[in-house]
Amino acid sequence: MTQRVYNFSPGPAVLPEPVLAEVQRDLMALPGVGASILEISHRSSTFENIIQQAESNLRQLLSIPDDYAVLMLQGGGRLQFSMIPMNLVGEGRRTCDYIVTGSWSKYAAQEAPKFGETRIVWDGKSNNYNRLPEPSELRLDPKAAYVYYASNETIQGVQFASEPQVGNVPLVCDASSDFLSRPVDVRKYGIYYACAQKNAGPAGLTLLVIRKDLLQRSRESLPGYLNFQIHAEAQSLWNTAPTFPIYVFMLVTKWLITDIGGLDKMEALNRSKAKLLYDVIDQSNGYYTGHAKPDCRSMMNVSFRLPSDELTNKFVQGAEERGMTDLRGHRSVGGIRASIYNAMPVEGVEELRDFMIEFRNQNAK
Amino acid sequence: MTQRVYNFSPGPAVLPEPVLAEVQRDLMALPGVGASILEISHRSSTFENIIQQAESNLRQLLSIPDDYAVLMLQGGGRLQFSMIPMNLVGEGRRTCDYIVTGSWSKYAAQEAPKFGETRIVWDGKSNNYNRLPEPSELRLDPKAAYVYYASNETIQGVQFASEPQVGNVPLVCDASSDFLSRPVDVRKYGIYYACAQKNAGPAGLTLLVIRKDLLQRSRESLPGYLNFQIHAEAQSLWNTAPTFPIYVFMLVTKWLITDIGGLDKMEALNRSKAKLLYDVIDQSNGYYTGHAKPDCRSMMNVSFRLPSDELTNKFVQGAEERGMTDLRGHRSVGGIRASIYNAMPVEGVEELRDFMIEFRNQNAK
Repeated sequence: MTQRVYNFSPGPAVLPEPVLAEVQRDLMALPGVGASILEISHRSSTFENIIQQAESNLRQLLSIPDDYAVLMLQGGGRLQFSMIPMNLVGEGRRTCDYIVTGSWSKYAAQEAPKFGETRIVWDGKSNNYNRLPEPSELRLDPKAAYVYYASNETIQGVQFASEPQVGNVPLVCDASSDFLSRPVDVRKYGIYYACAQKNAGPAGLTLLVIRKDLLQRSRESLPGYLNFQIHAEAQSLWNTAPTFPIYVFMLVTKWLITDIGGLDKMEALNRSKAKLLYDVIDQSNGYYTGHAKPDCRSMMNVSFRLPSDELTNKFVQGAEERGMTDLRGHRSVGGIRASIYNAMPVEGVEELRDFMIEFRNQNAK
Repeated sequence: MTQRVYNFSPGPAVLPEPVLAEVQRDLMALPGVGASILEISHRSSTFENIIQQAESNLRQLLSIPDDYAVLMLQGGGRLQFSMIPMNLVGEGRRTCDYIVTGSWSKYAAQEAPKFGETRIVWDGKSNNYNRLPEPSELRLDPKAAYVYYASNETIQGVQFASEPQVGNVPLVCDASSDFLSRPVDVRKYGIYYACAQKNAGPAGLTLLVIRKDLLQRSRESLPGYLNFQIHAEAQSLWNTAPTFPIYVFMLVTKWLITDIGGLDKMEALNRSKAKLLYDVIDQSNGYYTGHAKPDCRSMMNVSFRLPSDELTNKFVQGAEERGMTDLRGHRSVGGIRASIYNAMPVEGVEELRDFMIEFRNQNAK
């Protein structure tokens, strides 16, 4: 048995062990095919079955209605930061409204002005992005092309408990770091999208759930690969799809359905995992301080600080010695960030909890 | 031992077995890391070593000078069809010259007019793309932003023996289907690029070798992900890189250096493999007819026809029964296409040769 660490990386991130085991088992040749998933054509019947199964699994998990298309693209969240305004703003040059709650929604908002008039309708910068807007704080344009937000900010560890209210304006959500971590009503969204490398697969795949009427906004003058309608019409096979990440995504969604039992069960597990760590923070008499305000806490990325940089370094090193890696927080927030996505086992979180308690006992004055 | 077929797919395509074996061996956890290549951060020192090794291997194989940057991007050839004109045309609105020798250069030329005045300086359509231009047939614009061509056309099976002469205009080459199959002098190119999924790795990775002075043409107003300069400055880590395809690409280039012995040796092997099949065609008394004119024949994609569609179907079926798959030609050309990239073992080509001889003996009247 291969020695594996508990990997708290924010992304690319831990994957379910049964998924990795199946990838490994069939790596030289898929059963009955005689060639590796890395070697087969994206137009082969074998791969067509895989991509159809992946979409079918996703539709089942999120109860996606027929008037929504599913796209599987390359280019990550960064390419979506451009594709979304390029496709949605249209000729009418309507405004784009951005709710900025952390690094990733900020980066998205910085890209949009190249393609349309962009309004930052809320910005958590003055609080170092430790909280989310109250509904009364949002001044939305009812004629905007769309309202954009990130459901979970990976770096700051703040997460919306529910969608912002945006009326009839299409809501666009970057769900990269809490995708498939809980049930979501996709009918509330114009576009619900996520890169795969946090909760859904390896790097190199972006999943989009898009309301079909919005596809009509895509102009023919767009760069071909950046045109949502082209990809929708070709069912994500306009060009060579990222076959391997789609295969792993199919296995991850199968794991969610079969091994976990769906997103309600996944959410309950994620809540219990996050509670283990937040309880230690809250019961630490201020030794550990959480970055996010309690009502905005992320179930996926638990960001907290220790009393000093020296202790932070000692914590990171001590954790590594116990086989817990990638716990250092992003430089813009500092401290520790434990990313505990779907595939992080409870045992890994318990191990971290125990270490946090022990570390405080040994190091608090 | 897993039963593997001889896979003649045009792409994604066969990979070297030692590469697949190493991927499989370390799939659950990279040695000394304790996490899978699918799970580690693109900013981890482990992955930084992998991407640096991949670039270093590529620089060694192609003798890439320091005034060329190497980029590793997502989006495939299709995204390059847009990125290249968007970055190279610049404010001056100079023309783009395209040499159209088959399907892929045609698709590229169809995208360019969105971004600049496009001239088709040669088009092999009237010959159904079975030959390449003579130097005297090319009427190039000496002030063009660039001249674009594809060194090998995957569908038609025509391959340039050497670069077209373009003077001081930057030459842009789509080398997707003959990348790393033979030595190339990259100093003759402005941009030399290839998607990985034919000769260099799995789908989801595109390699670009780009002369650094051309990066200055990239305007700030470009969509961020489509800006060559941004990726060059960030050494392909501006966003989450496609970590797994880069890892496999690193292993493939290592295999080329260590197991094969470099691109001179690879070319000799490829020539001998292609000769096995073309000799059968030429000695078949017209039973098999090659698509490409003999002096334009591809060493990578051997396209030929049988006397009838019925016999073609029988050939494909008979080959499959002997464990040789993906031999059916593209619908635009018909017949048979045997893609015999770097990783196709000589034994696979010999098996196909033997079958071609036997099939003719049994079916020729």
